[in-house]
Amino acid sequence: MDYEALFSQAVDRLHSEKRYRVFTELARNCGSFPVADNHSGIGPAKITMWCSNDYLAMGQNPVVIEALQQAAKEFGAGAGGTRNISGNSHAIVELERELADLHGKQAALAFMSGYIANQTSLSTIAKLMPGCVILSDADNHNSMIEGIRQAGCERQIWRHNDVAHLEELLQAIPADRPKLIAFESVYSMDGDIAPIHAICDLADKYDAMTYLDEVHAVGLYGNRGGGIADRDDAMQRIHIIQGTLGKAFGVVGGYIAGSAKMIDAVRSYAPGFIFSTAMPPAIAAAAAASVRYLKRSQVERARHQERAATLRRMLLAAGLPVLVNQSHIVPVMVGDAALCKAASDMLLADHGIYIQPINYPTVPRGTERLRITPTPVHTDAMMQALTNALLDVWQRLGLRRQAA
Amino acid sequence: MDYEALFSQAVDRLHSEKRYRVFTELARNCGSFPVADNHSGIGPAKITMWCSNDYLAMGQNPVVIEALQQAAKEFGAGAGGTRNISGNSHAIVELERELADLHGKQAALAFMSGYIANQTSLSTIAKLMPGCVILSDADNHNSMIEGIRQAGCERQIWRHNDVAHLEELLQAIPADRPKLIAFESVYSMDGDIAPIHAICDLADKYDAMTYLDEVHAVGLYGNRGGGIADRDDAMQRIHIIQGTLGKAFGVVGGYIAGSAKMIDAVRSYAPGFIFSTAMPPAIAAAAAASVRYLKRSQVERARHQERAATLRRMLLAAGLPVLVNQSHIVPVMVGDAALCKAASDMLLADHGIYIQPINYPTVPRGTERLRITPTPVHTDAMMQALTNALLDVWQRLGLRRQAA
Repeated sequence: MDYEALFSQAVDRLHSEKRYRVFTELARNCGSFPVADNHSGIGPAKITMWCSNDYLAMGQNPVVIEALQQAAKEFGAGAGGTRNISGNSHAIVELERELADLHGKQAALAFMSGYIANQTSLSTIAKLMPGCVILSDADNHNSMIEGIRQAGCERQIWRHNDVAHLEELLQAIPADRPKLIAFESVYSMDGDIAPIHAICDLADKYDAMTYLDEVHAVGLYGNRGGGIADRDDAMQRIHIIQGTLGKAFGVVGGYIAGSAKMIDAVRSYAPGFIFSTAMPPAIAAAAAASVRYLKRSQVERARHQERAATLRRMLLAAGLPVLVNQSHIVPVMVGDAALCKAASDMLLADHGIYIQPINYPTVPRGTERLRITPTPVHTDAMMQALTNALLDVWQRLGLRRQAA
Repeated sequence: MDYEALFSQAVDRLHSEKRYRVFTELARNCGSFPVADNHSGIGPAKITMWCSNDYLAMGQNPVVIEALQQAAKEFGAGAGGTRNISGNSHAIVELERELADLHGKQAALAFMSGYIANQTSLSTIAKLMPGCVILSDADNHNSMIEGIRQAGCERQIWRHNDVAHLEELLQAIPADRPKLIAFESVYSMDGDIAPIHAICDLADKYDAMTYLDEVHAVGLYGNRGGGIADRDDAMQRIHIIQGTLGKAFGVVGGYIAGSAKMIDAVRSYAPGFIFSTAMPPAIAAAAAASVRYLKRSQVERARHQERAATLRRMLLAAGLPVLVNQSHIVPVMVGDAALCKAASDMLLADHGIYIQPINYPTVPRGTERLRITPTPVHTDAMMQALTNALLDVWQRLGLRRQAA
């Protein structure tokens, strides 16, 4: 059997749909972000990154780097084992205390990625509730979808952010069945925000648990960086908050926070937790330093919101098709995979601007886009250069503009 | 509905079965491993670790620490995004080149953990081969089992390391169906080793692909640390080699290596890869430094094998029930969850020796054990102290000994 041909055919399908992904090879320079070294072989040697999820540039914050270096010196590199078998470092226990405190919860549990945090937590929690129904927002992230699939329980999809539809579904489920409402706060591709209180009202009314993914909000919203639920004073209404250490906190890893009993149950039953090597102490220490820092400092958050608002205004004024939302994410719509890739390639080659094309399966077909994420370190001059570059590319590719 | 009660009941079940896991909180000190600070509140302030998977103490190797610190200084902390969206660092591309070279393959792909590497690679590869049957060794790790489940294809379990049974199953599968034989080289709990060539002979005969998990062997076996398949000159017979950067290489992360087409397909289709934040450049650089170092240096591997053989001999001479195998893993059998936990507690409290009890679900019920992993930095004196401590505990708990 020609196994290689099967893999070739799979890759060829992506080429033919014009959505084969080429990873742009870059090297960030600590201290000069968003400017990075370009190893892709296309465009200038130095480029400006406009699509990083290091939203607050915490990845180059000296507090974080020093914590990482110091912990590596003190404790070594890896954890040496699973949490149960020799990998349970003091540093990770302290990180979990910080995270529980961040969300006003009794306990937290750290994972090597937000992906595995969602996948193994959702599947485990559902399995511990016999007869459970999961009510999942239609736009939930793949990691939640995979976790819900793995749970093997009944699943109902409610239309994105549509609380009327959610209520319709809740009404039809017998009162004695456990229910779990799973949703996100900031949806990463459209940048829209869930009506958390309205969803929690329904959870109260129909006696459901709530699971909230705040990966695109932790560090960024709320007076201490607890996310949208922190900003909206709703953290105590959410049973399980899931977050990441790899975006606004600038490091890597994921976590959940909630009641001590729930965390203990996930810790004890989740295969993706039990059988995984623990987070290295240096990563835990760096993440804890970042979380602590952003509990106190407001300047990054304020500047971040201002930068996003300013860029959105500039792009709209230029007639570029910005998808307007209430968050820090600035999507510019293209609507075609090949054109989206071409726009990205031109930006890199001719303007030294790096914005990865966002195509299917990350977004639905027909909604391909450039997803722009301004950070506190993007200057006015960079924004002007970006606007001009987009206008040039839009003209050359004959892309649609809109009335300013 | 009392959701908290559901979680309480789940945890109570573990208590009643005497297999509730208490994580021992430690802080490793870089340079003094296997001695570590004990934060558990039980036993002395300094303990000796005997159950770490940092098999070669590479977690404290200066080459690794310096690479980690230097890369953090140069590139910052986190990757800032997925591999596709801003996270594809030069450091990770270089790591993948090292890994491909290590296994004599065209390409490699890095993941944040060995768990996710197995889970998402196995499920994706199977899905790309319509009608595929996976033939899985009965003792395969949970990450492989979950990946195979997620694949949703037909799955047949062959008795552990039993090639006759594997052939029986292969014979019964139509020739035109794709087949994938999934197995490990060193099985982590019993420490026994798969007959790789015999399995590959069957793969040739019945035209099957082979997927080999070498997580407990990479770095440790073969002239360049490529694992058991390297030692046995069988790497070119394996289609997909999976490994970890978190055990012998002393850092964190997982990977697969194989043909360029297969890697490209997994890169393009695997959800656990596509939707996960990339490995931080500092982690990639530290891991690459470790892999490079162990391609050249033989002293750690030689000393590791000698230390394991010496300890095995000492424990057997003392009449302790060692499960004898051909690897570096020294299991001492207890056969009861409560006694296994009690033995571990006594070792920590009274002897300053840390060996985590291994209970269900990590091993089958009735085969509970202390799993001892000697490293190059465990001295003769430590081994003598360990032997004496085990004898004391065995006597106090009335555990079974065997004729010396």
